[in-house]
Amino acid sequence: MKPIHGLSRKIFLKMDPPSEEDSRSSQARILDALKKEGVPASFSPAALRQLYPLCENAGWKVTVSLGWNGTSWEILFLEPGNTENDHYGLAVDLGSTSVYMRLLNCTSGETIEEVSAYNRQIAFGEDILTRIFYAKDNPEHLDEIRRATIKTLTELSSMLYEKTGVAPSKCLSMVVSGNMTMIHFLIGLDPFCIFQTPYAVRSDAPGFLRASDLDLPIAGYVYCVPGKANYLGGDITSGILATEIYKGEKISLFFDVGTNGELAVGNSSFLLCGAGAAGPALEGGVVQTGMRAAPGAVESVSLTDDTFHLKTIGGEAPAGICGSGIVDLLSELFLNGWINLQGILQPEKSSLISIRKNPDTGIEEAAVCYAPGLYFYQNDIREFISTKAAAATMIEYMLQASGIRLEDIDRFYMAGAFGAHIHKESAINIGMYPDVDRERILPVGNTSLEGAAKLLLNRDLLADIDRILDLMSYVQFGAVDNFVEMMQAASALPHTDEKRYPSVMKKLLEKAREKV
Amino acid sequence: MKPIHGLSRKIFLKMDPPSEEDSRSSQARILDALKKEGVPASFSPAALRQLYPLCENAGWKVTVSLGWNGTSWEILFLEPGNTENDHYGLAVDLGSTSVYMRLLNCTSGETIEEVSAYNRQIAFGEDILTRIFYAKDNPEHLDEIRRATIKTLTELSSMLYEKTGVAPSKCLSMVVSGNMTMIHFLIGLDPFCIFQTPYAVRSDAPGFLRASDLDLPIAGYVYCVPGKANYLGGDITSGILATEIYKGEKISLFFDVGTNGELAVGNSSFLLCGAGAAGPALEGGVVQTGMRAAPGAVESVSLTDDTFHLKTIGGEAPAGICGSGIVDLLSELFLNGWINLQGILQPEKSSLISIRKNPDTGIEEAAVCYAPGLYFYQNDIREFISTKAAAATMIEYMLQASGIRLEDIDRFYMAGAFGAHIHKESAINIGMYPDVDRERILPVGNTSLEGAAKLLLNRDLLADIDRILDLMSYVQFGAVDNFVEMMQAASALPHTDEKRYPSVMKKLLEKAREKV
Repeated sequence: MKPIHGLSRKIFLKMDPPSEEDSRSSQARILDALKKEGVPASFSPAALRQLYPLCENAGWKVTVSLGWNGTSWEILFLEPGNTENDHYGLAVDLGSTSVYMRLLNCTSGETIEEVSAYNRQIAFGEDILTRIFYAKDNPEHLDEIRRATIKTLTELSSMLYEKTGVAPSKCLSMVVSGNMTMIHFLIGLDPFCIFQTPYAVRSDAPGFLRASDLDLPIAGYVYCVPGKANYLGGDITSGILATEIYKGEKISLFFDVGTNGELAVGNSSFLLCGAGAAGPALEGGVVQTGMRAAPGAVESVSLTDDTFHLKTIGGEAPAGICGSGIVDLLSELFLNGWINLQGILQPEKSSLISIRKNPDTGIEEAAVCYAPGLYFYQNDIREFISTKAAAATMIEYMLQASGIRLEDIDRFYMAGAFGAHIHKESAINIGMYPDVDRERILPVGNTSLEGAAKLLLNRDLLADIDRILDLMSYVQFGAVDNFVEMMQAASALPHTDEKRYPSVMKKLLEKAREKV
Repeated sequence: MKPIHGLSRKIFLKMDPPSEEDSRSSQARILDALKKEGVPASFSPAALRQLYPLCENAGWKVTVSLGWNGTSWEILFLEPGNTENDHYGLAVDLGSTSVYMRLLNCTSGETIEEVSAYNRQIAFGEDILTRIFYAKDNPEHLDEIRRATIKTLTELSSMLYEKTGVAPSKCLSMVVSGNMTMIHFLIGLDPFCIFQTPYAVRSDAPGFLRASDLDLPIAGYVYCVPGKANYLGGDITSGILATEIYKGEKISLFFDVGTNGELAVGNSSFLLCGAGAAGPALEGGVVQTGMRAAPGAVESVSLTDDTFHLKTIGGEAPAGICGSGIVDLLSELFLNGWINLQGILQPEKSSLISIRKNPDTGIEEAAVCYAPGLYFYQNDIREFISTKAAAATMIEYMLQASGIRLEDIDRFYMAGAFGAHIHKESAINIGMYPDVDRERILPVGNTSLEGAAKLLLNRDLLADIDRILDLMSYVQFGAVDNFVEMMQAASALPHTDEKRYPSVMKKLLEKAREKV
């Protein structure tokens, strides 16, 4: 087994008891034994208070728990006997909607359990801007949101305790990845700066903070993965770390698609990064029957012979549609000609398309009935297409700005819950993903959490983080005029420039032939 | 003015406000500015929370307060504008009876104010052993004593606040010197180990501890001066630091006389150290009319023509006698033949000597009336002589053990309240101090406090502390057989070996001649 050099250590020490010949202090006895192991450390008062009678009762066979504070090792607590394998840490993806917490054994590197919950900040606003305005220049409100954040993390650690028996107080360190706003709220910093020119944030690299200073119930220190700029937070740094696109010569693309899209293209010599609003449609937010990926959500759609074949999460009756279902649906509608290149529903193509009043907007418009009682409206399609256009344009713009061609890119890492569940083929069909070899597109899941977990288990990656931050350069999407033009061109299905999507064109041709 | 490199720093930074071209975070802006000053540092969450709106409101002219945590600088708080000169720290002598706290300006090095109070531990026992037994294996009792210690320090810092307007929270660091027991109680460690074989203590070098972890109201860290062995605590290390006997080739002797006597002899190559009970008589404890150095205490005595000439503290009517008065009294009694070599009162010498019942012991014995209604009993003399014999024997034994002669010693540093106020001549007359050139004996006052203050203002002395601890070797007095014999020999006035006290012999001869 490869030894793990994480942000915490547990070291079992077998020491001689004090004698007339060797009357060193209990403290010196432990520090000397640690020095022999190559670990200079210091004691916290709490650990000093444990020395007696613990050491005597344990016959001087004691396990020392150490936390890295950024510059040195601190002894957090002592335990009698050998507890080296009871060595725990927490990795956290602090999302604005969902928060994921993973409990790891930091001696074996194994994941013990993972839990998630909605971020309690939602009580102060579904969307992040509402929360930011709530807290703006109002320390009491800011502290409410800070406490809601801490409560979310505390509850998750309690859930882990219930499931595994590992108390939060036994966790020696925590790594948190989150965007700038989330980290500002976690610490209790007013994040309005993130959205206001000149976009100079309060803290982009909080470093190692004492868990108790943050009111978190774990032992030791909390490391917040640093970010590069206002819209390039620690979640992206963490994702780049997780996918290792900063290593090697081959160029890769990292794309974390959610409410916001964050993009990085590069290798060991450069990392071009950008971020922009992708729109809530991806998470089922704006779509009339849209829902999160929960039981009953349509997650997969195919259309043959005027009939929708649906798959729902949990196999339940369809209750709505989530991101991957929407992408499938649009792809099928398009391939079957039920919507045209502009995404306009063609009522003559099917009796499932009718004119209905959209309950969300109150406007009469075309809608397709994809399941009994569930309609996908023209407006939904419009919203989703603008989202997919934004996503595709980010990639396109970034490549254009850097002179990198699609074929120069070795791997496309699609991160996030959306990237993990979306069907590549469908995403290519609607022009959301570029039309490249399918095996070059890799859904990588929650890389924000992955990166945090990697860091927790490997202290050396702190140097990699510095390297990543150095390599990163921020490309601002909104700042460029032709971004809007590019986005308009990307608002067709799959794109106004058909040559970019040869495999989709081929499929359309085949479909057309079938019908003949 | 010599620049001060203490355990804390205040640095005024004039920074450019964020702009489109330079949108570094507030945190990075400050850390970069500090790096330019050669001070890499990290932020505490509390300091991060101060960034906004303080920096903006102050026009990015901000003073950063930094505390040294043993391995790196931590930003404790920010202030608008230039407050570099409002830079404070505390030095503490944590004595078992009295606690002294000095407020220093750590930019100028000046002492602003000094206060003292009885140690609130006294509520758990006048003498240290009572307290130790109270706390032994009883965490609740131990915590009571810990809290009493903290309360003493907190009250002293409040006194300083009242006197100077400098709030404890504005003090960036604290250095505490105290014996092992005091430091154990301060942190909350059971000190019974100090008195029990094999005399391995819990912590002899607690290092830098967060003030908040100790429940102290100051900012930053508390440094406890480390000790060498159970009876050689940080107060002695601090005293050696203050007197600088560890520097240079000339051999010096450091003697801190109080309830306990601690002794160090050496130079830059060696430091022989010993400690032993000197007896409470030195602080007026056992003597029937003894009292602490307070108004009304007889502090100076001379005897001419059968009449005592007294000086009292504050010039008040005599209420009792303190250490320096006792030494004077014994010296005068001895030089005038009112007591003999063995310290026995000679009733035929004066009508002021009578047989009285000692209220303390209930025994009829000789007593001398040194002030109206105030008697010094034969028993008091006996107690004091055993104390002075212990003190003198410590010096003698140490010299004998090391092969160093009295004349090899360049300077005799007499520390402590007793050493500061005692009259050298009288102390030599009764054989408490050795009979050497008077100018070689230097009363140096509270060296425990002095050393703490020096350290507070000079971080480089941390290396000196390590050097001192390395040099120190512990000579155990009690362990040697002939210590008792030596002490018996020293129980005569000034000593059974008259040759050691030529100047006293000369005085006695002169007195005898006067009478002829």
